[in-house]
Amino acid sequence: MALIVQKFGGTSVADIDKIKNVAQKVIREKKAGNQVVVVLSAMAGETDRLIALAHQAAESPNPREYDSLISTGEQVTVTLLSIVLNSMGHSAKSFLGFQVKILTDKVYKKARIESIETAEIKKELKKGTIVIVAGFQGVDKDNNITTLGRGGSDTSAVALAAALKADRCDIYTDVDGVYTTDPNVCEKARRLNKISYDEMLEMAMTGAKVLQPRSVEMAKKYNVPVYVKSTFTDEGGTLVTKEDKDMEKEVVSGITYDRDQAKITVVQVPDKPGIAAALFMPLSEQNISVDMIIQNASLQGHTDLTFTVSKKDLKEARKIVNNAAKKISAKKVEVDDDVAKISIIGVGMASHSGVAATMFKTLADEGINIMMISTSEIKISCVIQRKYTELAVSALHDAFGLEKKK
Amino acid sequence: MALIVQKFGGTSVADIDKIKNVAQKVIREKKAGNQVVVVLSAMAGETDRLIALAHQAAESPNPREYDSLISTGEQVTVTLLSIVLNSMGHSAKSFLGFQVKILTDKVYKKARIESIETAEIKKELKKGTIVIVAGFQGVDKDNNITTLGRGGSDTSAVALAAALKADRCDIYTDVDGVYTTDPNVCEKARRLNKISYDEMLEMAMTGAKVLQPRSVEMAKKYNVPVYVKSTFTDEGGTLVTKEDKDMEKEVVSGITYDRDQAKITVVQVPDKPGIAAALFMPLSEQNISVDMIIQNASLQGHTDLTFTVSKKDLKEARKIVNNAAKKISAKKVEVDDDVAKISIIGVGMASHSGVAATMFKTLADEGINIMMISTSEIKISCVIQRKYTELAVSALHDAFGLEKKK
Repeated sequence: MALIVQKFGGTSVADIDKIKNVAQKVIREKKAGNQVVVVLSAMAGETDRLIALAHQAAESPNPREYDSLISTGEQVTVTLLSIVLNSMGHSAKSFLGFQVKILTDKVYKKARIESIETAEIKKELKKGTIVIVAGFQGVDKDNNITTLGRGGSDTSAVALAAALKADRCDIYTDVDGVYTTDPNVCEKARRLNKISYDEMLEMAMTGAKVLQPRSVEMAKKYNVPVYVKSTFTDEGGTLVTKEDKDMEKEVVSGITYDRDQAKITVVQVPDKPGIAAALFMPLSEQNISVDMIIQNASLQGHTDLTFTVSKKDLKEARKIVNNAAKKISAKKVEVDDDVAKISIIGVGMASHSGVAATMFKTLADEGINIMMISTSEIKISCVIQRKYTELAVSALHDAFGLEKKK
Repeated sequence: MALIVQKFGGTSVADIDKIKNVAQKVIREKKAGNQVVVVLSAMAGETDRLIALAHQAAESPNPREYDSLISTGEQVTVTLLSIVLNSMGHSAKSFLGFQVKILTDKVYKKARIESIETAEIKKELKKGTIVIVAGFQGVDKDNNITTLGRGGSDTSAVALAAALKADRCDIYTDVDGVYTTDPNVCEKARRLNKISYDEMLEMAMTGAKVLQPRSVEMAKKYNVPVYVKSTFTDEGGTLVTKEDKDMEKEVVSGITYDRDQAKITVVQVPDKPGIAAALFMPLSEQNISVDMIIQNASLQGHTDLTFTVSKKDLKEARKIVNNAAKKISAKKVEVDDDVAKISIIGVGMASHSGVAATMFKTLADEGINIMMISTSEIKISCVIQRKYTELAVSALHDAFGLEKKK
């Protein structure tokens, strides 16, 4: 008897008919002789509705109250699925964060799971009950409700799978797996049967929306096999798992893009110790994540510092950087939010030379200027003008032969 | 420094603007130097929306899941009020049933409060925090969410006032107090400045919608002064309190009606022991409350048994009674749902004679036939044809001189 965790996203539980469809998928796993734990998101659009209410109530809503408010969306879907399953004669029971309990730290809006109590869930599973857990939410040690950040239900599912030592964690979503790139942008995109944790993590971090990066980190840490599949079809699916021999043959597995980037350049910064800290400390204090950082060669005691932030943080980042730039006597601050980041990802990259060169040449051949470059062992990212996003993705997809069947 | 519990109903928190209006009333009590505990209902219509969702999901929703589902409405309003208050510079904190905690029995949909932990709330009040508690909900000893039944937020408020030994419990609603009768039915209705617990209880039980009967019972038991007032005006208000000398002068304080009644007659029941039990046991097993019961004089070993049930229970009650009637060899079952119950209530009634006679004569003078009569120390109820409801209420209001100023 296997223990399966099934997670269904917001579009899969958007209304009662869709929830009844989810019930069928749950019952199928149960009838196959498995123990089943289901994790749900809120109905599509519901979390946004609640966030809008919070911002109608106040410009900067109190974070403790905000989390308690927006956690109600998942409470609605888990109880409704349980009602459907019970009415069909299957014993089912919903659990909220405090009922499990899923213990987190005290960082509202992006709490991290510290531990999960499994005794009660295991007892219910043993009785044959289908256990349904509200995704996205937990409680801190003082019983305050916390939420795990956007896409947090993926993390809830993988964390539960890890804590329960589940045999598999199935992430049901509105696409039928992980693709070499976004099929909406490049029609030659091909679904991958398998991808390594590290590649999936890089893809999630550089723009692929299919899984929350933290859920992939956790899957890797606890070695949870994650299967990404569609709620609406039985075809396809992608297994996210440990690296294996097959994967290493692939130099590049996927191409991602991220249009949610803005580039900030601090011009003519005095080239002396402590300058970078003076710029980036105040940003980090305001919880603004800086992605790529480039420092140009020093010229007569001065240098230019360029970095990217998420577009939603740009307004606040600009204010902070302007202040910091004055203090360190930089000449000026330039902002460009008409950019995109294109990344190629592949575990085979580390052992193959010429991958970067191929990427740069491909972009150059299309007349696309590269503004910033950053690399890791299994990823190369370039910032380019936003309007070239589709062109760049398609050209790179061809150049690295991603269309071909394995 | 006084401790005030303020309860606001669904129409008072129906949208963000109304919640901001509630915030003003809360701040006023706080600024007057009081410690303030606020209890809220869900936004008007929200609980009905959630109930409709549950019934879309299943004909008979699992009660545990149903309660967890419909308790989300209060979670939304308490967090929103807290967000509003905090954004206005007032420290406020919301508490859900499990956070307080409000411990109840395990009877879903109409749980009873067993105890309320007050240490945490008292700590927050001492710090000057405005404490906001979700009405209508609690948890049983196994952390399952329970709800207290329709109007349960009144009970939450009074129970909190009792547990915290509050100086006053203010029930804010969409009317400005308790009236001698429903002003929508009788324009001469007059607001009462004061009413006794017992009278209020009888009025609530016989059709007045302003307070949930159980909240009045609890207020009486713990001697909590309850003040019914309007959210939308500062005028008026009615104090529900212990009986005093003034009240005893009034023979009749109020007139209520209840159109939600149906009359069932079991015709030609054998007049022998055990018959009533055979009829009423199966009803009680299905949680159907029977209100008035009348047994006519026995005629040749047979009698007629008439009783009333709530209209919403009629369909099921009829099925059960038909079965029982066959078993006890009754001749037939007759149903009349075109009835209303009219009641007159007054603590002075016990010490005045002729009250019942005046009621019967008043109805007779209007040509209204009385189908059933039931009395208590401070109440007389008559079942009449539904179409005479307004006429009966107005005639009795005149007959007992309720219009006059005290």
